[in-house]
Amino acid sequence: MDNKLALLTLCGSIIALLFAATRAQKVLRFPEGNDTMVKIAASIRSGAMAYLKRQYRILLIFFAGMFLILTVMAACGFLTWFVPFAFITGGFFSGLSGFVGMNIATRANARTAAACQKGLNRGLKVAFSAGSVMGFTVVGLGLLDISIWYLLLRLVFHLPIEEITSAMLTFGMGASSMALFARVGGGIYTKAADVGADLVGKVEAGIPEDDPRNPAVIADNVGDNVGDVAGMGADLYESYVGSVLSACALGVIAFNKIEAVDRVNAVALPMVLAAVGVLASIIGSMLVKTGENTDQGTLLKALRRGTNTSALLIAVVAFPLVWFIFGKAFIGFYFAIIAGLIAGVLIGFFTEFFTSDSYKPTKGLAEKSQTGPATIVIGGISLGMLSTAVPILIIAVCVMAAYTFSGGFTETTRGLYGIALAAVGMLSTLGITLATDAYGPIADNAGGIAEMSGLEPEVRGRTDALDSLGNTTAATGKGFAIGSAALTALALIASYVEKVQQVGGAGVELNMSVMNPPVLVGIFIGACLPFVFAALTMSSVGRAAQSIVVEVRRQFREIKGLMEGKAEADYEACVDICTKASLHEMVLPTILAIVTPVVVGLLLGYNGVIGMLTGATSTGFLMAVFMSNSGGAWDNAKKYIEGGAYGGKGSEAHKAAVVGDTVGDPFKDTSGPSINILIKLLSMVSIVFAGLIVNFHLF
Amino acid sequence: MDNKLALLTLCGSIIALLFAATRAQKVLRFPEGNDTMVKIAASIRSGAMAYLKRQYRILLIFFAGMFLILTVMAACGFLTWFVPFAFITGGFFSGLSGFVGMNIATRANARTAAACQKGLNRGLKVAFSAGSVMGFTVVGLGLLDISIWYLLLRLVFHLPIEEITSAMLTFGMGASSMALFARVGGGIYTKAADVGADLVGKVEAGIPEDDPRNPAVIADNVGDNVGDVAGMGADLYESYVGSVLSACALGVIAFNKIEAVDRVNAVALPMVLAAVGVLASIIGSMLVKTGENTDQGTLLKALRRGTNTSALLIAVVAFPLVWFIFGKAFIGFYFAIIAGLIAGVLIGFFTEFFTSDSYKPTKGLAEKSQTGPATIVIGGISLGMLSTAVPILIIAVCVMAAYTFSGGFTETTRGLYGIALAAVGMLSTLGITLATDAYGPIADNAGGIAEMSGLEPEVRGRTDALDSLGNTTAATGKGFAIGSAALTALALIASYVEKVQQVGGAGVELNMSVMNPPVLVGIFIGACLPFVFAALTMSSVGRAAQSIVVEVRRQFREIKGLMEGKAEADYEACVDICTKASLHEMVLPTILAIVTPVVVGLLLGYNGVIGMLTGATSTGFLMAVFMSNSGGAWDNAKKYIEGGAYGGKGSEAHKAAVVGDTVGDPFKDTSGPSINILIKLLSMVSIVFAGLIVNFHLF
Repeated sequence: MDNKLALLTLCGSIIALLFAATRAQKVLRFPEGNDTMVKIAASIRSGAMAYLKRQYRILLIFFAGMFLILTVMAACGFLTWFVPFAFITGGFFSGLSGFVGMNIATRANARTAAACQKGLNRGLKVAFSAGSVMGFTVVGLGLLDISIWYLLLRLVFHLPIEEITSAMLTFGMGASSMALFARVGGGIYTKAADVGADLVGKVEAGIPEDDPRNPAVIADNVGDNVGDVAGMGADLYESYVGSVLSACALGVIAFNKIEAVDRVNAVALPMVLAAVGVLASIIGSMLVKTGENTDQGTLLKALRRGTNTSALLIAVVAFPLVWFIFGKAFIGFYFAIIAGLIAGVLIGFFTEFFTSDSYKPTKGLAEKSQTGPATIVIGGISLGMLSTAVPILIIAVCVMAAYTFSGGFTETTRGLYGIALAAVGMLSTLGITLATDAYGPIADNAGGIAEMSGLEPEVRGRTDALDSLGNTTAATGKGFAIGSAALTALALIASYVEKVQQVGGAGVELNMSVMNPPVLVGIFIGACLPFVFAALTMSSVGRAAQSIVVEVRRQFREIKGLMEGKAEADYEACVDICTKASLHEMVLPTILAIVTPVVVGLLLGYNGVIGMLTGATSTGFLMAVFMSNSGGAWDNAKKYIEGGAYGGKGSEAHKAAVVGDTVGDPFKDTSGPSINILIKLLSMVSIVFAGLIVNFHLF
Repeated sequence: MDNKLALLTLCGSIIALLFAATRAQKVLRFPEGNDTMVKIAASIRSGAMAYLKRQYRILLIFFAGMFLILTVMAACGFLTWFVPFAFITGGFFSGLSGFVGMNIATRANARTAAACQKGLNRGLKVAFSAGSVMGFTVVGLGLLDISIWYLLLRLVFHLPIEEITSAMLTFGMGASSMALFARVGGGIYTKAADVGADLVGKVEAGIPEDDPRNPAVIADNVGDNVGDVAGMGADLYESYVGSVLSACALGVIAFNKIEAVDRVNAVALPMVLAAVGVLASIIGSMLVKTGENTDQGTLLKALRRGTNTSALLIAVVAFPLVWFIFGKAFIGFYFAIIAGLIAGVLIGFFTEFFTSDSYKPTKGLAEKSQTGPATIVIGGISLGMLSTAVPILIIAVCVMAAYTFSGGFTETTRGLYGIALAAVGMLSTLGITLATDAYGPIADNAGGIAEMSGLEPEVRGRTDALDSLGNTTAATGKGFAIGSAALTALALIASYVEKVQQVGGAGVELNMSVMNPPVLVGIFIGACLPFVFAALTMSSVGRAAQSIVVEVRRQFREIKGLMEGKAEADYEACVDICTKASLHEMVLPTILAIVTPVVVGLLLGYNGVIGMLTGATSTGFLMAVFMSNSGGAWDNAKKYIEGGAYGGKGSEAHKAAVVGDTVGDPFKDTSGPSINILIKLLSMVSIVFAGLIVNFHLF
């Protein structure tokens, strides 16, 4: 039976990829607009592709090096021979998700602008279809990788089930490393270009955003693609795959005391659940359509109809699925899945509550701009810090509920499996939630192209409406990403514990008590990592932005007639600087994430590593929420003022709000989202190096 | 023998208090200056006293309420009858420390200004003597409280030793609650006045700092006294007493398997060590003197000579002390003490490294002011976050060293006792380190008085030199406060675990594994508390500052001739607003700190509480370091620019730096230092309510 279930997953993957392909064709059938638009879109595309090519070249070295290390470790007997190859495929598919998503995004931007000339709804159709390509490519490739490896190891190599899940888990490390590079590199790129362009263009030269006279304007648009699209694609590929794989790994352990067939079924459940999620997402995204002339509220309703229907479908179908696989005795797992689904929705709602200017917190923040930049900065930081309380409580309740429903107080491992299932439940509708998230940057780009090619203001108004709608749906998407990261990270810690016992056998002396000094010290060090990581990525953005500032100032000074619109800016130079700077800056933080678990393990042993992972997960979750929400609130407070409040654009209040928004840029688009990946990569690296650490450690 | 050792502690306490009294007399012998100075000092004193009176009135209600609750709990058998009374004395002595320190500080400020008319060294003498009054009052009252209770319970009530230490530990809760109220209330007061005065005075009206035309100027000076002096006094009283008490409590447990006499000695060691520290501090502070005409470098050397000599004396004397008490077999405890001492010095040094403008980080931060407020804010946040790595590693090494040297890997409880001893070692020279810390705000006040009473600019130059010297020594003081808070909090968690076992007996099912969901969820919730606490205190400062801004603007508008210096401002009104606002705002954060452990305990049980304390300690330590260091670096970056760099005062760079400094104000003087107390108060409350939680909990 289990092979049939795995084939079902393969089918789900193929359906997702086919759906993505039809959506891509749909997008490409739309016209790209006039010559200027075609030209601008081409520069953005070539800049983005040039970045990705150079990024992949650097990553080739990294992956080759890691492959070598893993091969040596396999030769020494610390790993099975599948691990190095699994590592490579994980990285490859994660990168491919980003590449495909970005490719379509850079083809959809001008088309969205052109479509917006005819109407808002037509624009939505192009942008949302392009977003769907990304969403379904991510889930399709994720399930493809999982099901191919599963079938290969099971049908060709005939490995026992616990070795299969254990080997598969390690391709998560490939995906996570790739994701971290993409998120950090892309995040630095996009914010360096954005901050740099704003600091000189808006603040010093006083020209509007996306003005073609600004030499950094193309780099800014390229940044949206390499950061918000390619980075996000690799990121969510990693989340999706990580949650399924950790659930599979824990499923094997949860049922190792009952008959064998159950164990294989426990592995199948998360995979099949994900496949069902694909179908639910496709049905949901079919429902995203409205009449030709509609306002923003109706559009939002259309998007919500899609995501809600998908979630509801999953909630309905999961019940017979769990019943069919496990029978009545373990129906509690269904409630664990539902707990995850509800937690995702709730975190998404509260993210929106804290960051949207429709609610009190961001309105109150905007008010603080009246007493200057210092008060709005303090206000935003305190808003973000306060907002951590709600998701923490939601996750706390979700963890306790998933654990209890799954019978964790009878059999611990079953409870941990339940927590992992909650994460899978939360991400099961990723196809559509990612689609609603990914279309935002496309609309943003479309706006830039509309501005630069001098289309009627009406068109810009429509792209802005789409963009702002995207901000709202993106908040929901972020909620899912952060919530699932916390749950998956917890599941991965549990997987690590099992891995240690598996490779170490009877010699392992697990003492995970918080009063055991290596654990305690590990918690301290782990808790510190997100702080250090955030600091490194923030200062990278600062340095990279600085070099853009210098270049833009130089061009304004040296290129005569630029400000009068008589000469063209050297866009290439800025694109080039951003590319070099971000690729240079992405290396240190990522290496830190990979080296730290190994060093901590060698010094403090596996108990220390468990402590470190716990500390990093708890503080990382907080930091991710804090930074994303502060940044989001500043952004929307600025937009609220631009909408006319407290004197509107150009007022002192607006200037103060711009300072807040600029502080928030690296918060929400570089450091914050990277931390989600960091906490999982730490666990993944720990799992891969478990064999080494069990044999060599100081304490 | 042990009673003699306890009497030695009583002697130490009396010597400290006598020394403080002689220093106070010395200060009072100096003249207060001309009539204007006397008048200004009187307004500051009366404002500060009025605040304290009202604060104590509110706290009377709180302490009465808590006394009632504790009495009911004692009647129900969850506590011994000593606890409610011990709670009261802890709070009383903590408050008294703050009161005495502030009393002398408000008498020394004008005297320091007057002394600075005659020379820098004379000014230092007054200010440092006043600081010493504070330092030795804190340690004197702390040891008095400890030794009286010890002798009372042992000689009068003949309690067994483990009940004595357990009952004494609970008076730490009184001290901690008092300290948190004082720090939060005082911190909000001082920063509301400071930020409010700056926002309208400096930024809007363009008048210099401490200008008598600014209606908030007296409130600003009052704030230095109620926040930086009274708040700090109560805070460090709590740290000092907490470290000694937790070491005593763990000492009993560490030796409960060896003969009885050892256990009493284990209790005596931290007490006697503290008493020896008093003598070492007195000798050290005798050495703080220089010739009449000296520069700042020489003055710093003089201060350093004092603190270093004291530390060295302790290092020398502790060896025979440990040998005498425990014999050769347990000489490892000596190295635990030394580990704490060294860790304190190192953290102090790195605090200075990251926040002083003599070093690269703060210089680099000042450079970022050139591209505006956003970049200096991002830079400061990332500097602070990055700087957490160093103290975390120092504490990690210190914990592992103290644990290992004390034989923790043979007998766990002995290792935990070693960690507690490291904290006592770190704080043993508090008498002198606090003196060098406390004189800073006095010099700051003296500068204000010099400015307001129109003394020669030369005088202000001297008080500024003293103030700036104070910033450097304060960095060291902060290092000790933060480091000892982390170690003491860890010791308190260990004490909590013992307490649970003691009150629960055989029925207790301890499972402190991080993979136990209540522990895990507890860690998440605990880690969130410092974020929420920081957010609440920061927004309190914002709100209180806002009301000052409104009042100052009103006075500038309505009082005719104020700006021309023809009419006098209504200082009283600002003092009154600050008092009301800060007392109002201090309640919620403090209540949160007291209620949370009880709620978490009732829901998640004692395992959940242990998780919560661990999470709060690790993240709290990070947040305290981050916020203190970011704030300190912004402050000094601003001063560096005021010294002439990047265009000096009034330049765009300076304006940007002022924004950074204003953001940093609540960071370093309200939220950051309060978190140190928060993490200990959480443990103290948990310990007191352990009996209740053991009997009633959901999970």
